[in-house]
Parts: sequence; structure tokens; C-alpha cells
Amino acid sequence: MEPDFSPLAEHLADRGIDAYLIDADGDDANQRYLSGFDAPDPFLTCYRPDGIALLVSGLEYGRAVTESRADTVERPADYDRQQLVADHGAREADRRVRAAFLADKSVESVLVPERFPLDTADGLRDHGITVTVDNDDRLMQLRAVKTPTELDYIRDTQHANERAMDAAESLLAAADVDADGTLVHDGEALTSERVKHEIEATLLEYGCGLDSTIVAGGRQAADPHERGSGPLHAEEAIIIDIFPRDKETGYHSDMTRTFCVGEPNDTLQEWYDLTEQALDAALDAVEAGASGADVHAAACEVYEEAGLPTFRTDPTTEVGFIHSTGHGVGLAIHEYPRLSPEGGDLEAGQVITVEPGLYDPEVGGIRIEDIVIVTEDGYENITDYSRAFVVG
Amino acid sequence: MEPDFSPLAEHLADRGIDAYLIDADGDDANQRYLSGFDAPDPFLTCYRPDGIALLVSGLEYGRAVTESRADTVERPADYDRQQLVADHGAREADRRVRAAFLADKSVESVLVPERFPLDTADGLRDHGITVTVDNDDRLMQLRAVKTPTELDYIRDTQHANERAMDAAESLLAAADVDADGTLVHDGEALTSERVKHEIEATLLEYGCGLDSTIVAGGRQAADPHERGSGPLHAEEAIIIDIFPRDKETGYHSDMTRTFCVGEPNDTLQEWYDLTEQALDAALDAVEAGASGADVHAAACEVYEEAGLPTFRTDPTTEVGFIHSTGHGVGLAIHEYPRLSPEGGDLEAGQVITVEPGLYDPEVGGIRIEDIVIVTEDGYENITDYSRAFVVG
Repeated sequence: MEPDFSPLAEHLADRGIDAYLIDADGDDANQRYLSGFDAPDPFLTCYRPDGIALLVSGLEYGRAVTESRADTVERPADYDRQQLVADHGAREADRRVRAAFLADKSVESVLVPERFPLDTADGLRDHGITVTVDNDDRLMQLRAVKTPTELDYIRDTQHANERAMDAAESLLAAADVDADGTLVHDGEALTSERVKHEIEATLLEYGCGLDSTIVAGGRQAADPHERGSGPLHAEEAIIIDIFPRDKETGYHSDMTRTFCVGEPNDTLQEWYDLTEQALDAALDAVEAGASGADVHAAACEVYEEAGLPTFRTDPTTEVGFIHSTGHGVGLAIHEYPRLSPEGGDLEAGQVITVEPGLYDPEVGGIRIEDIVIVTEDGYENITDYSRAFVVG
Repeated sequence: MEPDFSPLAEHLADRGIDAYLIDADGDDANQRYLSGFDAPDPFLTCYRPDGIALLVSGLEYGRAVTESRADTVERPADYDRQQLVADHGAREADRRVRAAFLADKSVESVLVPERFPLDTADGLRDHGITVTVDNDDRLMQLRAVKTPTELDYIRDTQHANERAMDAAESLLAAADVDADGTLVHDGEALTSERVKHEIEATLLEYGCGLDSTIVAGGRQAADPHERGSGPLHAEEAIIIDIFPRDKETGYHSDMTRTFCVGEPNDTLQEWYDLTEQALDAALDAVEAGASGADVHAAACEVYEEAGLPTFRTDPTTEVGFIHSTGHGVGLAIHEYPRLSPEGGDLEAGQVITVEPGLYDPEVGGIRIEDIVIVTEDGYENITDYSRAFVVG
């Protein structure tokens, strides 16, 4: 099911701008969303209410015609690039080709994403085209609300994620513990790397991949983005955070569980219970019309009431609840909306993570993350995974 | 071994610009190269001859201090972002934080990559900082020449690539052929997807990954970027093009082989032989001081002499030799230099692919790609893989 771009058309009309323009490769979520096309090198997508036009290299032309959602696909040869190169050199030739591509469609003004390439913008401006940055993030907001097809894609990726988490948890649960507390598997220390390998191999079975994943135990877990390395240990909290992407659809999912092999100490158990409470409090706040700021505040309150620092109470704290409560997920891993102090209103159909956590190098780290679909009255939790802390 | 950034310092001095500035996430090769840091969200790297400074989120702060090559790491709280948000809103607060980050270092002018985000540039310009695009691509050229450590990283990725190619070739070689020519493995049709899975699982064993890979047979192979799908067949040319990335170092490699299970027809065999000749002719042209254009011309000549079309003889041809001869490889899959009509001079220490090919839906597709290091007198071929066409 195709996304409905009419809000974008309305926005262009409101602002008196002819077209929305993207210059990016297929890894760029805006590009993938608008063009439906995945290519390793940057290309142009020009959206007008009349239709979508792509400008791709000669090499990608055939594939773009077949695979993209564009109404028209063009290439530099259509604008006589070779002659322009001979007359003006490659850089100016490319500028003229882009300008001609737009002129061909009577486009004199374009709205572009914030991260549109500066040189392309300067080149268009030099050729008399007005380039305006989409500071309202209209396209980002549009793709934050998922179609039923997109929601299914995310469910599928999440299903793969749960299989991978299960494979990781099973390794932990089956591990032996040697005399100094190190986890042992197949006669050698069970490492973060071994668990990550299991995660990635499982994801591959389900057509998903990722660049890096987090399996961080003990002190390592106290840094929320620490990916983890080396042997894992009993009686420590081990954070496993997996954010895979389906290789075919491009849609992500995201989930975190924290495990302890053997008995956690009292502080870790207390932190785990608090984090579950913060997660539930944040989830309770989720519904269309609530703001990301509300949801984040609900999580912060639980921690603050227990006397733990958050960025609200201390902006430079390095311990406690030291990140936002969550983010949108889709073609990009971090999308609208944000569950942070600046988070705007939630809309039904958005997909968000809710992921409170506590961190302190003297204690370790705890994080529990679910992924949910915002609904009119609340949310649909699409994370089908238990919240057990102690395993093995 | 750290890269030598002194050419960048000289370039800044020549142009009278205070600093080189990057706003990008760790997937951006320029960002990874300059900062040594990998993060999923964009951050600022400011390079001056005096030192490298990073501006990262509070969340990434600890990891950036440990993992990046920066001399100093700062975060928005250092510039009182929370107060700025209260006074001006989030967007203007971020603009002021960036401007203050630069002012703190007496930076009044910056040189930025061509794909620097427009909104960041406009924001800096509004705060009186001169933003100039690096049209000489100085940083791209700098990172095109690899240090010995980088060359080792690429060799390691290439080694993984060869293991993956071998796994793929073995599947083809061991396949049975059923009555209508379909390849059969484990009682079912051997598909592109099955071969890709073998490739990716093998790469994972070696700590490498990729988003997509090409296993394209028959008519599919006639489109150079067609990824391939469905059952594979005997007596057809099957192009396998693998361009993995090491998950830890970030360095890529790239290799293509074309295989035929059973007897190829005369045209395919002829095209294969011509492509080997074109590859050898192009390799012969490789040395420091030769241009990418020279190398590309050498490949084109072989095909043109045999009466086959190239983009030189027909810029809009959809059959024949319909792409450039190769590209640099490193932290990005497509880097300087280009082996194309606009390709500049090669330098010792650059890593390039050499990948001629022929394509026609009526015939199929052939491509053979090696990856080599440019040397003063020629090249060092780091592709350790036979060029056999017929397997099984």
C-alpha cells in the first residue's frame, strides 16, 4: 500500500513552493520513502502533486524504472551531460543537469530536508532556483505515521528480533559459571562477541541485518551506547539491545532486555523493578494527542521519586536516567516522534520505542525497551517477549 | 596508525579558512575518517591544525571520549543548551550551541564537504560564520590514499570476501541440474536468495556484513545493479558481486566473479574472454600518475575493437560496456578515484576496483572485478581468487 503524500502536496501549496526535492542514496529514509528506490549512490527525487520524477545514473536507470514508484525516471544523458562536461567540466555539468531537470518540470522553487547537501543547494541557488529548508520536517512527520503495510513490515522485523533475543537469552541461560564468575559455553568463556554472533546469525535467517548490536555486561552496561566486548559474568546485569533492519523492506525494529545469570545484588534488583515501573508509567501515558514530553516525564517521575538523578534534575549527570525515553522507528532507526522534553504530540499509527534505563559504573546498567504502535486510546504493544531478569 | 591530516591543514592555510567541519553520523566515511568515531546519530567534528574537537550528544559523550581520536569532546550541556531551549526553542538553541562551539575555538570560517547539511550551513551563516564547500574534495582525496593499517584492514575484508565467494561457488559447483536446466540443491531449486544467504552467513563468520549482494543469472545479469532473485540455471552466466564491510573497522572490499554451470554458448564464452582481456588491459594501465580516465579508456578499447558498444561510442546505449571501469574503496564502497572519463591521476596507496563487463538482455551479463592497491610502478593485486568461468 502506497503512502499518502497528499499532506506533502498541501504543505507545498500552503508555502507556495513548486516541489519537494531530495538528493540522497537509498539508505536515507526520506529518499527511500519518497522514491521507493534503493541505490548505493545519491540520486534526485522530485515530488510534485503532479507526480514523482527521479534523476538517476545511467547505471541505475533500468532498475529505477522497474523498482521505484516514480512516474518518470530520467538520467543525465537525457540532458546531454557529455556535451556539458566538454563545455563546462564535470561539476558545472552536473549543476546544469540538475537545474535542467527541474526546469523541464517548470520547477522554480524547492522544499528540501534539513540535511540536503549544501553543494547541491548552492548550485541550484546559483541557477536561480529558490531552495527552502523544510524546518517543519513535514516529510519526517508524514513518514512517522505508518500505513498498515508499513506496520506489518515492522511487525515482521520485530518477530525476527524476538527470535534473535531468544537465541541470545538461551546462550546465557545454558551457560556454566566458572570459579571466578565468568560464564562458560562450549568449554570457553562466553563473550559478548559470541552472543552477538548468535544474534546476527539468527537475524540473517529471517532476512534481517544490523551494523552493530549491544551485548554489554557489568560496568560496560553503564554506558548506554557501549556495544560490549569480552567475557560475560554471572550476577551482573547484561543489557542486550537489538535494532535490526529487514534487508528487503528497509524497516527497522528495536528491543532491549536485561538479563542476569544467577542472583543480582539488591541494588540491581531494585533498579530493575524501578525500570519496569518507569516503563509501565511511560506506556500508560502513550496515546494519540499525548506528547512525547509527557511520556518522557512519566518515566522521569518514577526515577526521581526513588531519588535517582535524571537529565531533568541534573543536565550534566553521568549516572541515573541519562537518555530520553524513546523514539520513532521506521525506515530509519531514530525517527519522529521523540519521547524527550521537546517531544511533540503523538499520532495514531506512529511506532515508538519506550526504553527507560538506569546507569552507574559502580552498579552497572539496566534498560528495558518495548516497541509499540500508538493508537487513539493508547497503544498496541508489538513486543512479544517476557520481561524476566534472572535467567539460568 | 593514524592518518596524516597535514595536507588538510595546509589546504586550510592556503585558503585562509580556520577549520574543516563535518556534521554527519558514523556511517559517513568522511566523519568516520576524521573523528575515528562511529555513532548512529549525526555529530560535529571540527578539525584545526591545533587539534580535533567533537560535539556529541550527552548520550554518546562517554563513548566518544574513549573511542574517538578527538583531542577534546564536548556536549550541548557545555553550552547551556537547556537554557537556550527555554529562551529560543530547540532549533535555534541547537544553532546557537554549534555557533558557540566554534566561537569557543575562535573559528570564524569553515570548509565543509559537498554533502554538508544545508540547514546546519544556513544556521552557521546566520551566525556570521563563513561556510565554504570543499569543491576540491580535499578530504575525499586525502582518505583515498591508505595508510599501511588501512591497507591491512581492506586485505582482511577481502579475505572474508574470498571465503564468501568460495562458499557461493561451491554451491553452484555442487548443484544438480534438472530436466529444464534449473539448478537443484538439497532437493529444491537453487535460488539467488539461497546463494546470498550462504554469502552473508560466511561473511558473518569473518565479522563482515553487507546490506545487499548481487547473485544475478541469465537475463537478470544484463542489468549491472540488478541484485538477482529466484532459481538459477545451467548454461547461463551468473554474476556474483560481493562488497562487504568489516563491522569493526568499517573498511570495505569488493569483488565480482561470473560463473556458468555447464557449457556457456559461444557468445557468452567470447564475452568472458573479452572481459578478461579488458580487465588485463585496464590493470596494465594502472600505476601512480596514470589517470582513471586512462585505465577506463584501456578497457573501452578492448570492447570497441571487438565491435561492442561502450558509453564512449554511444552515451545512451543500454547494452555493451555500460558503466565505468572502477572506483576507490575504503570506509565507503564508492570513493576516489574514479576510473571513468573524468577520472583524475592515481596515487600510490589508493585502493581501486577494476571491473569491466558486458551486458545485453538477449545474451546475459559478464563482469570480472579485482581489487588492487596502486603502486609507484603498477599495482598489487590483493584479489586471491581464480578467474574460472565454468564450474560444476
